[in-house]
Amino acid sequence: MPTYTTPIRDMQFVYNELLNPEEIQALPGYEECSPDMIAAVLEAAGSFCEEKVQPLNRIGDEEQCSFDEGIVKAPPGFKAVYDEYCGLGLNNITSPTEYGGQGMPIVLGTMVEEIVSATCPAFGTYPGLTHGAMNAIEASASEELKNIYLPKMTTGQWSGTMCLTEPHCGTDLGMCRTKAEPNDDGSWKLSGQKIFISSGDHDLAENIIHLVLARTPGAPEGIKGISLFLVPKIQVKNDGNIGDPNGVTCGAIEHKMGYHGSTTCVINFDDAEGYMVGTQHKGMKAMFIMMNTARLGVAIQGLGAGEAARQGSVEYAKDRIQGRALTGAKNPDKPADPLTVHPDVRRMLLTQRAITEGNRAFAYWVSTELDHANKNPDEKRRQQADDFVSLMTPITKAFMTDMGSELANMGVQIYGGHGYIREWGMEQIVRDVRISQIYEGTNGVQALDLVGRKLGMHMGRYLRGFFHPVDAYLEETKENEALAPFHGALAKSFGRLQRATGFIVQKGMADPNEAGAASSDYLRLFALVTLAYLWMRMAEISMAKLGQGDDLFYQAKIDTARFYFERILPDSGALFGKILAGGESMMNFNDDAF
Amino acid sequence: MPTYTTPIRDMQFVYNELLNPEEIQALPGYEECSPDMIAAVLEAAGSFCEEKVQPLNRIGDEEQCSFDEGIVKAPPGFKAVYDEYCGLGLNNITSPTEYGGQGMPIVLGTMVEEIVSATCPAFGTYPGLTHGAMNAIEASASEELKNIYLPKMTTGQWSGTMCLTEPHCGTDLGMCRTKAEPNDDGSWKLSGQKIFISSGDHDLAENIIHLVLARTPGAPEGIKGISLFLVPKIQVKNDGNIGDPNGVTCGAIEHKMGYHGSTTCVINFDDAEGYMVGTQHKGMKAMFIMMNTARLGVAIQGLGAGEAARQGSVEYAKDRIQGRALTGAKNPDKPADPLTVHPDVRRMLLTQRAITEGNRAFAYWVSTELDHANKNPDEKRRQQADDFVSLMTPITKAFMTDMGSELANMGVQIYGGHGYIREWGMEQIVRDVRISQIYEGTNGVQALDLVGRKLGMHMGRYLRGFFHPVDAYLEETKENEALAPFHGALAKSFGRLQRATGFIVQKGMADPNEAGAASSDYLRLFALVTLAYLWMRMAEISMAKLGQGDDLFYQAKIDTARFYFERILPDSGALFGKILAGGESMMNFNDDAF
Repeated sequence: MPTYTTPIRDMQFVYNELLNPEEIQALPGYEECSPDMIAAVLEAAGSFCEEKVQPLNRIGDEEQCSFDEGIVKAPPGFKAVYDEYCGLGLNNITSPTEYGGQGMPIVLGTMVEEIVSATCPAFGTYPGLTHGAMNAIEASASEELKNIYLPKMTTGQWSGTMCLTEPHCGTDLGMCRTKAEPNDDGSWKLSGQKIFISSGDHDLAENIIHLVLARTPGAPEGIKGISLFLVPKIQVKNDGNIGDPNGVTCGAIEHKMGYHGSTTCVINFDDAEGYMVGTQHKGMKAMFIMMNTARLGVAIQGLGAGEAARQGSVEYAKDRIQGRALTGAKNPDKPADPLTVHPDVRRMLLTQRAITEGNRAFAYWVSTELDHANKNPDEKRRQQADDFVSLMTPITKAFMTDMGSELANMGVQIYGGHGYIREWGMEQIVRDVRISQIYEGTNGVQALDLVGRKLGMHMGRYLRGFFHPVDAYLEETKENEALAPFHGALAKSFGRLQRATGFIVQKGMADPNEAGAASSDYLRLFALVTLAYLWMRMAEISMAKLGQGDDLFYQAKIDTARFYFERILPDSGALFGKILAGGESMMNFNDDAF
Repeated sequence: MPTYTTPIRDMQFVYNELLNPEEIQALPGYEECSPDMIAAVLEAAGSFCEEKVQPLNRIGDEEQCSFDEGIVKAPPGFKAVYDEYCGLGLNNITSPTEYGGQGMPIVLGTMVEEIVSATCPAFGTYPGLTHGAMNAIEASASEELKNIYLPKMTTGQWSGTMCLTEPHCGTDLGMCRTKAEPNDDGSWKLSGQKIFISSGDHDLAENIIHLVLARTPGAPEGIKGISLFLVPKIQVKNDGNIGDPNGVTCGAIEHKMGYHGSTTCVINFDDAEGYMVGTQHKGMKAMFIMMNTARLGVAIQGLGAGEAARQGSVEYAKDRIQGRALTGAKNPDKPADPLTVHPDVRRMLLTQRAITEGNRAFAYWVSTELDHANKNPDEKRRQQADDFVSLMTPITKAFMTDMGSELANMGVQIYGGHGYIREWGMEQIVRDVRISQIYEGTNGVQALDLVGRKLGMHMGRYLRGFFHPVDAYLEETKENEALAPFHGALAKSFGRLQRATGFIVQKGMADPNEAGAASSDYLRLFALVTLAYLWMRMAEISMAKLGQGDDLFYQAKIDTARFYFERILPDSGALFGKILAGGESMMNFNDDAF
């Protein structure tokens, strides 16, 4: 089993050296969040997850969740670690202080999520879903509901879910059939079946607070007739304590490819009492608040999986001796050289590194902007940050999860036959991370969100939050000789992104299928250019720090940047070519011939 | 569960219309192998596999193999179907007639392997490994051994294995420690432990014939001191019947990511009696005969997985209604449109189609050349064919298995949440096919075989078997206006392949790490150009057949070719860029910084 060590040095490099920690600390409520304080939280969360959460990962995979006579249990050991995790407050780092949370920056929450995702992602779903549900309640529910539910969700005594999918509708929630009928007292009576409910039932928390999409009587058809309801598994009495069961039962748990430590439930509502969250028929809007948090969270699952695979791969490649270097034995005293002498193994190790470190920078960047969107006193800056997060959310979700799968598969490949054997731990990462490309909107849906909604929004205003800084940076560095190789390649790929954007906007206006046909390739191109921009900046920062005592770290950054530009970024050309070929070849194909 | 239907029409298109069936039928011993006879075998094998083998797939995954007090059993149902499969002769279609086989063309064997791989790949390992072992025995063993062992392996009464890997050596077989000591009667006594032995033990056959790499006393170190031995699980008496156990035991079976229906065993040899196959210290050469058959067989596993995923994806995408076409409802009477209206879903379906049909053409082409290499009376033609097969074997193995994984993952993606649930069958394809990228030489080893051995062999002679026909075809079609879009793109990507070849040969001479650094990208580039050449030829053939009554089929070929050229082949540019960037960025990285 590979052993994960929290990459605190790299996390700090991104936060302290690439981003602007002083701007975060200047936001109202974050005054105490100095880099030192953030380092202390990372140390604490890191050691807890390494020691307590990590061992759950294989237990969860092997022992799995159980479902017996309607009772759902998380795998052995999960409950004790969950209690300890919540006891340390690791579940409510970013939750509002008024309900008992710690009110720390989102970017710190992201860092901790990365650690949890790398040690036991299935464990992470329980606090993760609660977090999403709390966000939706906080943003849209009445004060009364907030005061009753948020404090106990903040401590982890109660957990939360998102109940969206039904057997016949996943992406297309407008077809949702779960019904909500009004009671006399202003509450609602919900009936229907939801499927694929992560953390839908389990034995970690005293109560489970479901956020449920449902249709009220006479509601308009489709998406415009959906409302959001809060439905506790167990009724909550006026004194805030739990009372009788509430007509919410688990009908079955799913048998999945992976993520065995996380329960995925069929949840049946039979005249369950619920309370509307937000405005009637505006459930999708309230739901999207929860969903957007969740999408960034899922992106982080991809990042964490990539880091876990990367560390495991390095450990194995350094340890396993097999074959000789092509240029002659490197370890003549031993019967073979380590795998690290083989160029193709190095290609995989460096791909894991370049993508993971690049995505870490990307994820933390978006997270700091989310902090600005929430807290910055300057309205214009808040708006800019919100635009940026809106633009980047689908990109982070799709790209980071696609990469999580790809890098985990590289891990299996580096381990060779051992990678395929369960006890070595690599194949589990592949199975676990695979769901992240699907849930909270498939990656195809993310791509469509990007080209169909985000590109055109406010006459392309969202794009400026990325295009302007890149333009400015290219201008600023154009005379820098040390950066010249990076500069040329970034300018070229950025030019492709700009032209692809123009092509899609223009073509897509006449025929939306043209935008759809380009969407996935465009999202990938956008992500590659984003990472190129970040890698060039990280290289620049590192060049300036050489000779100051940490050359191993900074030279590795520069070298990884070079690898990224030379061996990964060329994909931008292929993506550009595919986009410009247009969608005819896929739309004209005769359906009967499939 | 998706239902597989043997793609007989497409198999026949490739064999009858793209390749030259009359040349195969003209080979000595194949006189009866008319296209009609081949169609009859495909019909028979197809219906048997659809009805009997396919249902084993999920049983094998769920029930798995068992290991109890040293006894290994295949999953329930496997034995009965295996007996019937062998009873029909489906296990020995291509085996030599002198030992009871049917002596039919390799290309027909490939077609049947594709069907088995698409219906239950785990089942296919049992006859598949036997086939590989028989090839090695036939090529290198004494007449006596052949006469004793081949007839019963041909009927399937006995099965076979390849025992190569040991705990400390997989790729690097020179480190093999299993020992063979001479007995007085010319036989040998083998002791040691082998791991990852597919079909290493099971209850399908009466005896299991292991082909074992081992070291004789005083043998040179490394690869040059390895010999190959035939070691039966149960001793064989002089009358050819089985006798006493032979010191061959199964120590454990592995718990794997997938392929649960196939036993993967630790096999212990304790003074087991064995017989040398071929010359002492030349075991690797004899082993490679077995390995090369196996590599093509593994490529076909990738092809079969891709086809199974493709068919399942089409079935689901046509059936599942979700969302509306971007251009307005296509099924206004229903609550939603089928998934096939969404451009991004079509992109995935067409990628599955273009790659699978292209790989089918590629696999059958290589297989017919293998028939020529074995049977053609013209020595020069035999040599050419053998050169071609040598060049293409690593490419088919790595590319087709990489694509098997990729297309199966697309299948999961098309199914969305249901793709992640075991009972829907898609995720099993992903787990099962994953091993094919690893065993019989990881795909990185295939790439190294290509650049390190095949490129330079006989001054580049192997390459001519591909470069000359492509050159000639480009010349021949340069005035053909209907083919012009294909012509330009093929010429461009072929030019890249030629320049990349020159770059690698030149750079690799000065520094072998440069060849290694380029190897995987180069193999992929080679495969993409090969498929481009085949797709252009298939499009040309199809254009000529339009208007003759099967336009749905032929137009789909032309349209799929277009999709391939526009939306897949552009990757050749990115690969070219990466290769020409050289290997410095991966070789110069400081190992301590990993």
